[in-house]
Amino acid sequence: MASDENKTRIMVALGGNAILKHTEQGTATDQLRNVRLTSKMLVELILDGYQLAITHGNGPQVGDILLKNELAKSSLPPMPLDICSSESQGMIGYMLQQSMYSELHLAGLDSSIATIVTQTVVNSDDPAFTHPSKPVGPFYTAMEASKLRNEKGWTVIDDSGRGFRRVVPSPQPVQILEETAIKTLFDEGIMVVASGGGGVPVVIEEDGSVRGVEGVIDKDRAAVLLAQIISADILLILTDVKNVYVDYNRPNQTPLHNISVEEAKKLAADGQFAEGSMAPKVESAIRFVEEGGKKAIITSIDNARQSLDGKCGTVISKTKLHSW
Amino acid sequence: MASDENKTRIMVALGGNAILKHTEQGTATDQLRNVRLTSKMLVELILDGYQLAITHGNGPQVGDILLKNELAKSSLPPMPLDICSSESQGMIGYMLQQSMYSELHLAGLDSSIATIVTQTVVNSDDPAFTHPSKPVGPFYTAMEASKLRNEKGWTVIDDSGRGFRRVVPSPQPVQILEETAIKTLFDEGIMVVASGGGGVPVVIEEDGSVRGVEGVIDKDRAAVLLAQIISADILLILTDVKNVYVDYNRPNQTPLHNISVEEAKKLAADGQFAEGSMAPKVESAIRFVEEGGKKAIITSIDNARQSLDGKCGTVISKTKLHSW
Repeated sequence: MASDENKTRIMVALGGNAILKHTEQGTATDQLRNVRLTSKMLVELILDGYQLAITHGNGPQVGDILLKNELAKSSLPPMPLDICSSESQGMIGYMLQQSMYSELHLAGLDSSIATIVTQTVVNSDDPAFTHPSKPVGPFYTAMEASKLRNEKGWTVIDDSGRGFRRVVPSPQPVQILEETAIKTLFDEGIMVVASGGGGVPVVIEEDGSVRGVEGVIDKDRAAVLLAQIISADILLILTDVKNVYVDYNRPNQTPLHNISVEEAKKLAADGQFAEGSMAPKVESAIRFVEEGGKKAIITSIDNARQSLDGKCGTVISKTKLHSW
Repeated sequence: MASDENKTRIMVALGGNAILKHTEQGTATDQLRNVRLTSKMLVELILDGYQLAITHGNGPQVGDILLKNELAKSSLPPMPLDICSSESQGMIGYMLQQSMYSELHLAGLDSSIATIVTQTVVNSDDPAFTHPSKPVGPFYTAMEASKLRNEKGWTVIDDSGRGFRRVVPSPQPVQILEETAIKTLFDEGIMVVASGGGGVPVVIEEDGSVRGVEGVIDKDRAAVLLAQIISADILLILTDVKNVYVDYNRPNQTPLHNISVEEAKKLAADGQFAEGSMAPKVESAIRFVEEGGKKAIITSIDNARQSLDGKCGTVISKTKLHSW
């Protein structure tokens, strides 16, 4: 079944809670149940006539894999972050494929779905490498932190008084190495899952060979690259909240509905969006629209379908759409 | 770059030692070095004009992931075997993609490579489910073994006096669920890595939905299905030894060079090939040729290239080829 060029193409970026809620333990049963519910919603979008590609976060999963490596290190060599990240891509891709296959079948659709293990190229001189900022893995005591700094050269910081945590660089994604495969599948009408957790960050060496680096790429930033590969009309960023807010968590908190790229940029410059949380989502939405996408939507999974009908969520487009 | 129909298509099944040697600890450095060497050899085959698809074993990797889960179980919920297996697909796929990309680039080729996370359908009434035979994961004491039998319903057996080990079913693969994606990539000339570790075994429920099961599919058996999907001319099974032998490990051990399917079947019926080791390789080679493949070769990685020139290895074909 080849891709139908008349279909609206959506790049879906699933937040962590599409797979695991903060309140859950993270058993396989928990994760498969959530992924199944997410898949049910995605199949509704397909029934509505959209063609989808999917990316997803991997924070809790790669955190668990890192911690398991840490706890087992006296018996087995721990794997570096890039390898743990590729493991999480296999794991989440499998759960998505399985749940989507089931929901597609139950809906009477015979679409295919496949996960491509993804490497995302970053610049080795990205300033993020000298300013690691993204906490990953388990908490440590002050003494363990000091040891890890000396022995492994890690940057380990005091994480808001909750303990010490390793921080890694979060460089800007430059290119998806597997872009040809992703485009090939999408253009054949196959739903593709790619760049899980932003993709494993890699650098291209002087001789042209590829090397994995320890870092975390923001999945919404990688989603913009994916959206370009599949020529998406819409970037749909699904997260915990129904809307982007101004004055978030303050008494005068106000949801944003339709805003233009210019308005979004102004609010971002005013520091309205939290770093490491809403800021990269809004930044990615802006970039997507500036580079030719029709609109970007930020909303919660439950509101995804309605947001495509323009009934809720925060919509960012070149010029402000009708208000509602 | 679309697939060239004149190229000979090879389905390569990499044995565990293409990724990790028995004598190694299993660090990321060990594995990446081995995978890089394997990739160098595979690129030589591409330079010789062959088009490849790749599958691989995952025994040591999934064993380590299971053991890490076991050692961390007081802190984090352990993942079931199907999920651990999907993690190993992500991990090994990533290492192969990275190494292959590098070696392709160094050889001046711009081919693409991508890993598809794979589910392999098995029959829920496969007799293997009532006769678990494949050891997986860590060794246990007799007391632990007894506890695991009672609490988890696992089959745990005394493994040749080395300790107690869980055994899981090794059902026959029936279908690769991601076959459309695999064929699509291969037909576009993209080197595809699929069915790592045989693929995660799944069953199709009565309502058509898919469920992962705890078991291990023989990767050479899954390779036969993959070979059919990509219409392979040759199935190339790469393992520890240069040849298949009769009277293996006996004073009169004799290497097999060219044999017909009929000879291979007779030797297999005579019990010449070890169960869980050479037997499923020979069985897969026979099946591949019987279902229309030109020839199957069983040899070591170092001898892969020469074996394609008919200079070494064990070649199984419909009728015996020229001898050498």
